[in-house]
Amino acid sequence: MTRVALLGFGTVGSAVARRLVSPDAPPGIVLTHIFDRRADLKRQTLQTSQPVEWTSRFSAVIESDVDIVIEAIGGVEPAADWIRHALAAGKSVVTANKQVVARHGASLWALAARQGRQLRFEAAVGGAMPIVRAIADGLSGERITRIDAILNGTTNAVLSRMEARGCSQAAAIAEARANGYAEANPEVDLRGDDARAKLAILCALAFGVRVDAGEIGVRSAEHVSDTDLEEARRRNGTVRQIAHAEYDRSRRRLSAWVAPVFVRRDSIFARTAGAQNCAVISGEHAGQIAISGAGAGGSATAVAIISDVLAIARDRAAIVPAPHLTTDFTLTTEITEEPVDFDRQPYGLEVAEAV
Amino acid sequence: MTRVALLGFGTVGSAVARRLVSPDAPPGIVLTHIFDRRADLKRQTLQTSQPVEWTSRFSAVIESDVDIVIEAIGGVEPAADWIRHALAAGKSVVTANKQVVARHGASLWALAARQGRQLRFEAAVGGAMPIVRAIADGLSGERITRIDAILNGTTNAVLSRMEARGCSQAAAIAEARANGYAEANPEVDLRGDDARAKLAILCALAFGVRVDAGEIGVRSAEHVSDTDLEEARRRNGTVRQIAHAEYDRSRRRLSAWVAPVFVRRDSIFARTAGAQNCAVISGEHAGQIAISGAGAGGSATAVAIISDVLAIARDRAAIVPAPHLTTDFTLTTEITEEPVDFDRQPYGLEVAEAV
Repeated sequence: MTRVALLGFGTVGSAVARRLVSPDAPPGIVLTHIFDRRADLKRQTLQTSQPVEWTSRFSAVIESDVDIVIEAIGGVEPAADWIRHALAAGKSVVTANKQVVARHGASLWALAARQGRQLRFEAAVGGAMPIVRAIADGLSGERITRIDAILNGTTNAVLSRMEARGCSQAAAIAEARANGYAEANPEVDLRGDDARAKLAILCALAFGVRVDAGEIGVRSAEHVSDTDLEEARRRNGTVRQIAHAEYDRSRRRLSAWVAPVFVRRDSIFARTAGAQNCAVISGEHAGQIAISGAGAGGSATAVAIISDVLAIARDRAAIVPAPHLTTDFTLTTEITEEPVDFDRQPYGLEVAEAV
Repeated sequence: MTRVALLGFGTVGSAVARRLVSPDAPPGIVLTHIFDRRADLKRQTLQTSQPVEWTSRFSAVIESDVDIVIEAIGGVEPAADWIRHALAAGKSVVTANKQVVARHGASLWALAARQGRQLRFEAAVGGAMPIVRAIADGLSGERITRIDAILNGTTNAVLSRMEARGCSQAAAIAEARANGYAEANPEVDLRGDDARAKLAILCALAFGVRVDAGEIGVRSAEHVSDTDLEEARRRNGTVRQIAHAEYDRSRRRLSAWVAPVFVRRDSIFARTAGAQNCAVISGEHAGQIAISGAGAGGSATAVAIISDVLAIARDRAAIVPAPHLTTDFTLTTEITEEPVDFDRQPYGLEVAEAV
């Protein structure tokens, strides 16, 4: 039996809570505490017969006997500080917070390792798409050289809506707001800050480099107009906000940027529409691996969080060593125009299937 | 320092060995033993200054102090027996052997768990594409309902070659043989046996069901003709060998088959060409996750094997519980014509990006 506390009952937190108290909740996982500043208002919105303790005091969570703390409050502070406190108190932590992992990942990983606890953050990048595990674990035997990805679902939804309707960006955003989307702040997403934080995390996992998200090259997508999309259409493509990172190990040179760029109509990027995310991971030994999926939304993010909770519950004493990150590299931020697409034919018939 | 033995020095084994003795080998992993029936002939083909012991006696590996045994000999026996011996001797095992995992997975997982050792098999399905981890770990928090996939690189290469050239299957295979591909046995792949074994493994991981690969529905791709492909082209699509599995948990009903079927031109399946693999994983909570990549070839398979070796080396005492598999379900093998494509827009702008 693994006891879990949840910090924050917003879009993601409430989706996680509903999963954990539902009839098909993962066996062996018990949600015992929910922290929210407005616990008194929100407690009646969660239908459950289980005895969940609602609190608006973080210390009540720290002092409890929970094994895992799920951080879903967002923002850098107090989230980072609370994660630190939870690890120091001997809890493992699951977070969806890309800003915290991008900024404080190195010190938090080290703290978790010292404590013999785990810090997991599959939900911080790519929503339900298991890209953190793909890079850190499934492709640990690859030498990854390059990542080209769509990492911000909101921007992708705005751009693909403009593309589909031929409308202005303002109209696409207004339509979004009319659809109950007004809570989020599309400007932050369009500017590229969200994707830069996620790209910084992927650079750490794929290349072992510690790059400041704020130093990653950026061009805002706020100025992409219907004319730009029409022009791209004429060139047989469209516009997507691409996060790009390429690492030359021998020269210790990292190229990293987030920008709206032209992508070909038949590329995986153009085909990624709505709030989907995708990533093309290029490596020296296996060519390219592509992954796509729901990049945003409460229930998609909850899938990633619950997968992390289950991974910890499966083996609470698991050793997850802190990655060794270097800052000894040169960063170039020049934006090249076209990302590398998923190569459809890296291998011909020459390749034997047999073991 | 983790000591590794390799069983089998064929396409995959030799690719693994070359990686492990190369200058950019993963740190902390040492290849100490290579078993091959023709060890004496093959030993000079591996250039290395490291002291690797070649042997044609399996017992020399079992009696050694290696921590991990990599099984790359293929075939069901003696591979399954040797994996059993290695686990019994306290070694962890990494295998690329889909036939063994499909047939003996349940008993081998149980043995590994009893021994406190690990059995890993990322390379058994999807080559370098980390689909085993995606399903068993990254999406453990999802309720997976359906898998539609291309799991056999050889068949896909033959079909996509026929499509591109408008040639007969015999010509596509002959061209393959002329390109040095003659060692493999395309008939076994075309018939669907390889994909059925892989699909049985994915059914165990995704649905917790134990299905006999030989009972999965099948229609051979050996009889797909240039006329079939031309007809599919006229319908704005093509033909791919699809592995399909869908599980209705409430009714305990599994639908599973492997067959060449019509796929739409703009589907992820039609875009998967050459020896690539792809999979679309549908779930109740996050819609669809798609993954594509090199499904065959020595160096791609070596990536998956080395990722498994690194996962074990990272935490040799890790607990990997044997999955609970049920046989209490009904299997239907009726082949439906068209697989579900990756849905490009499961979420609209309504979905908030914010945590």
